[in-house]
Amino acid sequence: MSNRTELEKLGEFGLIDRITNGFENTQPSTVKGIGDDAAVIDSGDKYTLISTDMLVEGIHFNLMYVPLKHLGYKAVMVNLSDIYAMNGDATQITVSIAISNRFSLEAVEELYKGIRTACELYKVDLIGGDTTSSSSGLVISITAIGEVNKDEIVYRTGASENDLLVVSGNLGAAYMGLQVLEREKEVYKDNPEMQPQLEGFDYILERQLKPEARKDIIHFLKDLGVKPTSMIDISDGLASEVLHLAKASGLGATLYEEKIPVDQETFDTARTFNLVPSTCALNGGEDYELLFSIKQTDFDKIKDNSHFSIIGHFNDKNSSVNIVDRGGVSQEITAQGWNHFKED
Amino acid sequence: MSNRTELEKLGEFGLIDRITNGFENTQPSTVKGIGDDAAVIDSGDKYTLISTDMLVEGIHFNLMYVPLKHLGYKAVMVNLSDIYAMNGDATQITVSIAISNRFSLEAVEELYKGIRTACELYKVDLIGGDTTSSSSGLVISITAIGEVNKDEIVYRTGASENDLLVVSGNLGAAYMGLQVLEREKEVYKDNPEMQPQLEGFDYILERQLKPEARKDIIHFLKDLGVKPTSMIDISDGLASEVLHLAKASGLGATLYEEKIPVDQETFDTARTFNLVPSTCALNGGEDYELLFSIKQTDFDKIKDNSHFSIIGHFNDKNSSVNIVDRGGVSQEITAQGWNHFKED
Repeated sequence: MSNRTELEKLGEFGLIDRITNGFENTQPSTVKGIGDDAAVIDSGDKYTLISTDMLVEGIHFNLMYVPLKHLGYKAVMVNLSDIYAMNGDATQITVSIAISNRFSLEAVEELYKGIRTACELYKVDLIGGDTTSSSSGLVISITAIGEVNKDEIVYRTGASENDLLVVSGNLGAAYMGLQVLEREKEVYKDNPEMQPQLEGFDYILERQLKPEARKDIIHFLKDLGVKPTSMIDISDGLASEVLHLAKASGLGATLYEEKIPVDQETFDTARTFNLVPSTCALNGGEDYELLFSIKQTDFDKIKDNSHFSIIGHFNDKNSSVNIVDRGGVSQEITAQGWNHFKED
Repeated sequence: MSNRTELEKLGEFGLIDRITNGFENTQPSTVKGIGDDAAVIDSGDKYTLISTDMLVEGIHFNLMYVPLKHLGYKAVMVNLSDIYAMNGDATQITVSIAISNRFSLEAVEELYKGIRTACELYKVDLIGGDTTSSSSGLVISITAIGEVNKDEIVYRTGASENDLLVVSGNLGAAYMGLQVLEREKEVYKDNPEMQPQLEGFDYILERQLKPEARKDIIHFLKDLGVKPTSMIDISDGLASEVLHLAKASGLGATLYEEKIPVDQETFDTARTFNLVPSTCALNGGEDYELLFSIKQTDFDKIKDNSHFSIIGHFNDKNSSVNIVDRGGVSQEITAQGWNHFKED
């Protein structure tokens, strides 16, 4: 081939733009294809939601410190989270794995124990998949299927100027959990006799190793009578997701650093690592919390609820996406998130 | 871990049995989970069909002789074939890939050109996917989504005693195409100056590199007013698929060697390779033809149609699955097909 463009130059989103260029939807049942947390298919009474994610050993997980059971559980959560981000209910999954002969049956069974626990707790059925060998590592590809009433679906595109930006739970914990695991891995590599020091990091380790998709939040919002105007799940970090919502809805946005919810253990650990806690919350991935916008008229329903933090608002389409720090200084947020194709 | 069971001891079907053990379906919309060509979800007026397959470099394809465009096309066909095998219509796909940095953007674009051609010709929409890097090879995971009227769905389980076994097209061609490609690869490895000898193998090479899923067959059958009593697509070889249908329907079966359709080029090439053509048809995989059963009362609608060959019939549940050779000798068919976990 005469031209060669390296993948790391593009990043994941650039690559997706390039390869999906030229595809056109022709099926009348295709309501929404690429570009939201899940695809939307009209199946008559309801919409069917489809989302898929691939996890690759050495890229998304390191089996040196990730137990296979937790990995199976997390792989399901990552996918269910995308269905909930459409305000839908997850109903089924398919699981495909490629594994090398270095894995035993017992190892694969551990992986599926985690998958089964996730299925039981979240009430989704495992309905299919594929099982094959690989020449080296482990690859897990999961497709989640869900459903949503047509008048309840929430896209990334529905926000309006002045809508409030709300986030569930707290942010940055999964990222700090990863930092602790990476630190202990380095210690172990230097001296395999050393026991890993993981005490006192229970919460952030659980957020990294065994995250929960926020199915509960979807139900809380229904109970409160709040339908978000736009929604996305936080897999690549708050900064990246706010940019996605703003771009999809054609708006600007303002976030307030002091409003971003950070758990105490996350905060303390970040300080120990000489990191700024709110930066971890802004750029750290894998929290699987939900970021959404609500009309100002729904403010009272949300404001005193401990599950939610109001962190900012959308602005008119001519403004950028900014964060106001504790000193009142506003800075523009530019694309962050993970670029797996970049060599670290 | 105290016990270690090697995966190659189990094979793919054994592994699937072990890991899916303990999963129970609880969603009312789950009509059929694991165990057919596609899963079946009740979406109100119709059934939604879901099927997924993973293709791994070095296991399912060798980029030494598989052009990326053809690989993309074939990866889609493999999945659509499973939807047609339920007597349904494929409507959407998701495509996830893991690729290493040794691939350029241009290479990935070639792959997606093949995917796009497949989508255009078969009228399916690409509605989602995932794109990530891998530490070594290329992995493609596709999920196909389809729909079928509830009274038209065909499972593997519906056959009755004396139903006729019918196959579309001809068998063994994809397998012989692979033999030619493998031979030329060996020649090339010995002497990279040698040009590959591929003339005269056009048909079998196309069957291997760029197979077609038999969407047309589903429409032919509708036009003929024939609803199969059971159906499966031939991905692992006729022998393996007949066993699947017989087991699922709880029956025995008899095949007649002389009735198995083998194309002339396949036949001649098999002879050149000192292989028995009908054995290639019986055990060679990747034909993506449809194997189905019909009621004897539909015999007249099928018998003179060049798309179909009647190759045998189902027997009562106490009999085995047998093939009668040209000399009239009956032999039992036992499990064949591919075991990717076995070292060749």
